[in-house]
Amino acid sequence: MAEYTYNKVSAELVEEFRKIVPGKVYVGEEINQDFFHDEMPIYGQGQPEVVIDATTTEDIAAIVKLCYEHNIPVIPRGAGTGLTGAAVALHGGVMLNMAKMNKILEYDYENFVVRVEPGVLLNDLAEDTQKQGLLYPPDPGEKFATIGGNVSTNAGGMRAVKYGCTRDYVRAMTVVLPTGEIVKLGATVSKTSTGYSLLNLMVGSEGTLGIITELTLKLIPAPKETISLIIPYENLEDCIATVPKFFMNHLQPQALEFMEKEIVLASERYIGKSVFPKELEGTEIGAYLLVTFDGDSMEALEEITERAAEVVLEAGALDVLVADTPAKKKDAWAARGSFLEAIEAETKLLDECDVVVPVNQIAPYLNYVNSVGEKYDFSVKSFGHAGDGNLHIYACSNDLDEETFKKQVEEFMQDIYRKAAELGGQISGEHGIGFGKMEFLYEFAGDVNMRLMKGIKEVFDPKMILNPNKICYKL
Amino acid sequence: MAEYTYNKVSAELVEEFRKIVPGKVYVGEEINQDFFHDEMPIYGQGQPEVVIDATTTEDIAAIVKLCYEHNIPVIPRGAGTGLTGAAVALHGGVMLNMAKMNKILEYDYENFVVRVEPGVLLNDLAEDTQKQGLLYPPDPGEKFATIGGNVSTNAGGMRAVKYGCTRDYVRAMTVVLPTGEIVKLGATVSKTSTGYSLLNLMVGSEGTLGIITELTLKLIPAPKETISLIIPYENLEDCIATVPKFFMNHLQPQALEFMEKEIVLASERYIGKSVFPKELEGTEIGAYLLVTFDGDSMEALEEITERAAEVVLEAGALDVLVADTPAKKKDAWAARGSFLEAIEAETKLLDECDVVVPVNQIAPYLNYVNSVGEKYDFSVKSFGHAGDGNLHIYACSNDLDEETFKKQVEEFMQDIYRKAAELGGQISGEHGIGFGKMEFLYEFAGDVNMRLMKGIKEVFDPKMILNPNKICYKL
Repeated sequence: MAEYTYNKVSAELVEEFRKIVPGKVYVGEEINQDFFHDEMPIYGQGQPEVVIDATTTEDIAAIVKLCYEHNIPVIPRGAGTGLTGAAVALHGGVMLNMAKMNKILEYDYENFVVRVEPGVLLNDLAEDTQKQGLLYPPDPGEKFATIGGNVSTNAGGMRAVKYGCTRDYVRAMTVVLPTGEIVKLGATVSKTSTGYSLLNLMVGSEGTLGIITELTLKLIPAPKETISLIIPYENLEDCIATVPKFFMNHLQPQALEFMEKEIVLASERYIGKSVFPKELEGTEIGAYLLVTFDGDSMEALEEITERAAEVVLEAGALDVLVADTPAKKKDAWAARGSFLEAIEAETKLLDECDVVVPVNQIAPYLNYVNSVGEKYDFSVKSFGHAGDGNLHIYACSNDLDEETFKKQVEEFMQDIYRKAAELGGQISGEHGIGFGKMEFLYEFAGDVNMRLMKGIKEVFDPKMILNPNKICYKL
Repeated sequence: MAEYTYNKVSAELVEEFRKIVPGKVYVGEEINQDFFHDEMPIYGQGQPEVVIDATTTEDIAAIVKLCYEHNIPVIPRGAGTGLTGAAVALHGGVMLNMAKMNKILEYDYENFVVRVEPGVLLNDLAEDTQKQGLLYPPDPGEKFATIGGNVSTNAGGMRAVKYGCTRDYVRAMTVVLPTGEIVKLGATVSKTSTGYSLLNLMVGSEGTLGIITELTLKLIPAPKETISLIIPYENLEDCIATVPKFFMNHLQPQALEFMEKEIVLASERYIGKSVFPKELEGTEIGAYLLVTFDGDSMEALEEITERAAEVVLEAGALDVLVADTPAKKKDAWAARGSFLEAIEAETKLLDECDVVVPVNQIAPYLNYVNSVGEKYDFSVKSFGHAGDGNLHIYACSNDLDEETFKKQVEEFMQDIYRKAAELGGQISGEHGIGFGKMEFLYEFAGDVNMRLMKGIKEVFDPKMILNPNKICYKL
């Protein structure tokens, strides 16, 4: 088996970098500690030897070529909002701060695409496309992630149920390979059968196969109106059982989220506002669906809302609350949008998983998770995307010491990952593998799949310098 | 560079195969000559030494393992409807007749998927899903291709403009690798970020990375109604210029095809029926759009039709003919559906290309193709998917000798592929590369991309036994 060794960045090499990108190279104390971790420091921290603000494809190619020649690890990093330690320099080397390449380059209104640099924030792209009457459909929860990061994790988000994931909106990209070579993948076309889809291989590869330096993204005309519904249920089973009925009845929600009562309460405490009903005519509410429909006229949406109300009430919903004004929609979604922050605000020790299971397995799966959770000393909170089976499950503790917490959580995660696999699901729906989930990927993807992935990694990265110790290349 | 050599299939090995799948092994004269080529014999013919009717994943794995041990080429073949010589045994070996694995295994009505064997014909799947009130959206022109073949070429078809390509409907697959190992890729989920997408790599790999033995395909609830419009224009520019206006006006056609007059005439001669108008109030018609909308009620479709009519008439359409009865829709689409047969019926020598260009480049591209075509002694006919820029361009001759035709066509194809690349397009929209388009892929994908593809091929297929001399592995 091939062995790979890495060198330290020499002072001479730093000077070479400075010649390529004067004023953009940071070493030692100049490096902000934010660059040592992502949003989940629990999954690994590390200090890059050098941080370089990314500028152009050509500059990046020149820098990477030097790193390739000198066996120096290279770690591309977006906004650092990842949740798996994917963009952390675990073995020193050069970190490329891709967030600095943040220009929206060009709209093509006839082919419905936009060319962007990878460091554009999702939030900025969303606002800018809206001004053009266009929509970039992927809508991951974290609005201040970079688009490059979204592509690298195939980020999903709220609207995946109707519009699909980031993968479905990547038409083309420019990539600097770990060798320093530049390739262009894909084209401004929606159909292609032109050799292996290297484009689709890059999507979701978490900065391990190449450095994305430009993206061409598909847009759609923005739907003119939206309407949201809060639908309370007595319990989670009734709530989840409704989900397929939306599709069977030709109702295509833009977003279809479920939430259990406990997390709603935490979120309402956090935002300081009560939005969701807690009981109805004496019946205690146990779970909710939060649904958004989009369309081109309020009349059409009202008709859809009526049909949806009939369907869900017949399926056991206790009520249907319509949020049809901007203020009401904002309140409903503010509660949903604050789940993670609400959990973080109330919790000292936190770990999470991001499994995805078939939609009709959500309820049995969560019941299993909750019952297993009772064996442990931490509490379990969960919410997720009912329309696509992607669940976010949090283990939270304020009392345990870190070591005990980690030990308990590892056992818990093993158990619930195994159950997700057993029910036909996968390890991660949208956060990725990074460093934090590698052990679980190795366990559940199987030896042959891991061998294929590592082989592919070696084809792209013969010296294994790009973002080492992530996904399929364990050090 | 690694060198790969292949052995001939020995009589002993044939006996081994017979032990695995008794009565399913054919040699020599027992092999029907249909297995020597696909629908375009011009792209290569070859005789497999052995043809084996595929039965189960496990049997295929056992057969492939033997081939791997003995360095015998293995060629999976569906219905033989390919157009690039992808499923042809160019170097002897064992051909697996996947068309024999043709069972629809199971519908999952809650998760909207169907499990199928790869040899199910598109036509059979379409009919069967319809009975369930469901739709498998991909709709390639050739209805008697296998689903496995469709996945292997990422087949596109008429409805790609609204629903996407085959890739977008593949949730999971079982694959026998060239080593004889069995892997499962993907899951019944619409969202995943669980390592490199081997699933997406398999889609469009034309039987060179693994043998697909089972597929889980996404379905959608069938739209209840459709309506078709025939929209005549004075010329192709006006016709194509309308296309983006559909999307800008939130009109989402299920199909959006363009056609020039000459091919409509050929097709009407072939089906023996005049469907499309040829002139209007003294103005000669030069091109048409054929558009289908789908929806849940005729009222909704009538409203869409009205809006569409306004948009296209303002954009220069001469008229809008509504096909709202089954008979009228059938006639309109029968003319479209017979283009290839009509061309074949009138033509002795034929070659084709399947480029895809950005939608707003269709008209300039076709004008270029037609003007270049005039330099040659063959005639050029074209039609295609206006909504997605995928064009089918035919070089047709009844007078040239084969050698002259081939020489002229090669020069012509070089020229028009170069132009497609220049306009931001790609070599193939939906037919694939196979053997016939390899030279063009090498020329236009670039050395680095080809090196990556070949590297990936070697990872999956260390002895390069699976479908050799296709896509990225040239012999």
